[in-house]
Amino acid sequence: MTLGALEAGGTKMVCALGDETGKIFEQTSIPTTKPEETLSACMDYFKDKNIEALGIACFGPVDLNRQSSTYGYITTTPKPGWANVDVVGAAKKALGVPVGFDTDVNGSLLGEVTYGDAKGLTDAVYFTIGTGVGAGIISGGNLVHGMMHPEAGHMLLTPREDDAYKGHCPFHRNCFEGFAAGPAVEERWGAKGVELADRDEVWDLEAYYIAQAMVNCIMILSPQRIILGGGIMHQEQLFPLIRKKTTEMLKGYIKAAELEDMDSYIVPASLNDDQGIMGCLKLALDELSR
Amino acid sequence: MTLGALEAGGTKMVCALGDETGKIFEQTSIPTTKPEETLSACMDYFKDKNIEALGIACFGPVDLNRQSSTYGYITTTPKPGWANVDVVGAAKKALGVPVGFDTDVNGSLLGEVTYGDAKGLTDAVYFTIGTGVGAGIISGGNLVHGMMHPEAGHMLLTPREDDAYKGHCPFHRNCFEGFAAGPAVEERWGAKGVELADRDEVWDLEAYYIAQAMVNCIMILSPQRIILGGGIMHQEQLFPLIRKKTTEMLKGYIKAAELEDMDSYIVPASLNDDQGIMGCLKLALDELSR
Repeated sequence: MTLGALEAGGTKMVCALGDETGKIFEQTSIPTTKPEETLSACMDYFKDKNIEALGIACFGPVDLNRQSSTYGYITTTPKPGWANVDVVGAAKKALGVPVGFDTDVNGSLLGEVTYGDAKGLTDAVYFTIGTGVGAGIISGGNLVHGMMHPEAGHMLLTPREDDAYKGHCPFHRNCFEGFAAGPAVEERWGAKGVELADRDEVWDLEAYYIAQAMVNCIMILSPQRIILGGGIMHQEQLFPLIRKKTTEMLKGYIKAAELEDMDSYIVPASLNDDQGIMGCLKLALDELSR
Repeated sequence: MTLGALEAGGTKMVCALGDETGKIFEQTSIPTTKPEETLSACMDYFKDKNIEALGIACFGPVDLNRQSSTYGYITTTPKPGWANVDVVGAAKKALGVPVGFDTDVNGSLLGEVTYGDAKGLTDAVYFTIGTGVGAGIISGGNLVHGMMHPEAGHMLLTPREDDAYKGHCPFHRNCFEGFAAGPAVEERWGAKGVELADRDEVWDLEAYYIAQAMVNCIMILSPQRIILGGGIMHQEQLFPLIRKKTTEMLKGYIKAAELEDMDSYIVPASLNDDQGIMGCLKLALDELSR
């Protein structure tokens, strides 16, 4: 079986061929420029490859409501030219195969729970903490959409008493993304995260905000595991700090076996940065069996 | 069809008979004392009533994991005598019928999405804001359990600058319950909520905290509607304040048709305080068809 996978990002499109086991046969990368140009180049890649279905994990916001007239569209993105772009429609028209569609972060989460260390979990969260903060969520075995889709990077957080930084998000300054995404780290400390790797106070504060988000996720979703990816999480010294602070902030309120082993509860992505594209293969597979 | 419904609360047990349409034939209330005594009295009520199944919505924390050896138990409650009580086991043994089981708040939510104004919604949240704060959540048509069940009353909130009150929750003082439950209102203002009904500043502050919780719920779960019940929400002047502050705090970030009509988005419970017992009827019905 050959399935197509398209991880549609704001800076590049990763196009790949693979199968239902998550095996990737080949992949290529196409820069994200204008919608027609970019999507045409992607479709040219998939044409004549005999794919049975295509899975797309897309930057957003996107419309995931199958009853909506704009299902499969990128909706209100500030990215120039990309608002109201019919991604699924373009793919169906060009390829004539079933097209699965979800958010980029739901794609990554789906990769992890289908092919990664989180395989088989029914309730899990995948955060990417990088230029922005996004979250893919699965609950009871279903990717969470709701009225739109989660935007958990914008949950509100409490500033630490000694942190005078006002936050980077133009919408709500005191949100997870506003306090903890890459641009916030850079603006607060005056240097990029990679240049601050040996500054303990940077990662102690970063872990403080990420741990708050972990606590709110645990209280609201009760996930079996939380996976953290994205550029900021390449600072691996964050993991033990986040686990410790999350435990401290939970204050022993939630009694669950999972929380007694935090090393297995808050974990890095497990698929060598292929979780997104592998999630697309699963989106394609699921669309085939609808 | 006759179904049994048991809304198991910390102060009383409501036992009722009804049917699959949500119609309640009769009901009674039994005080919650010692587990054996209370559960025996409940089972005596249901005996000889020819119920086809029983649904129980129970105070907690409870074990909802069907694979667990303590499925159907109340687990770590501080309520004296009620930790590690096998509620489902007692009911099955006494009645010999299928027994559905979930949290009290999931029961209320299930009542609302099955028989109430939220009928047919697949993604919704029910908060009860009273002596404590609890939340029932449905996502993709499934009641959210995860590793345990949501405890969204304990999400962390940010104190308002002019509020010096340190919070009432003995676990995490700056959580939703700690800032906004009945005992917090009473401790902060020196009088019970009902006695403060005409004090605008009380409800302005209360709405500030509830709105923060709404924002976090919206960001993480993307619900189609949020239902607010419980003693505090009898102060109906809260609804317009909460809606306004929620909109303000969202800062226009989420574009969704639902949020353009906040009067239909953040709403009171619709079933005249019968949402819990009606949810139990649905739990019984669902257990029958498992």
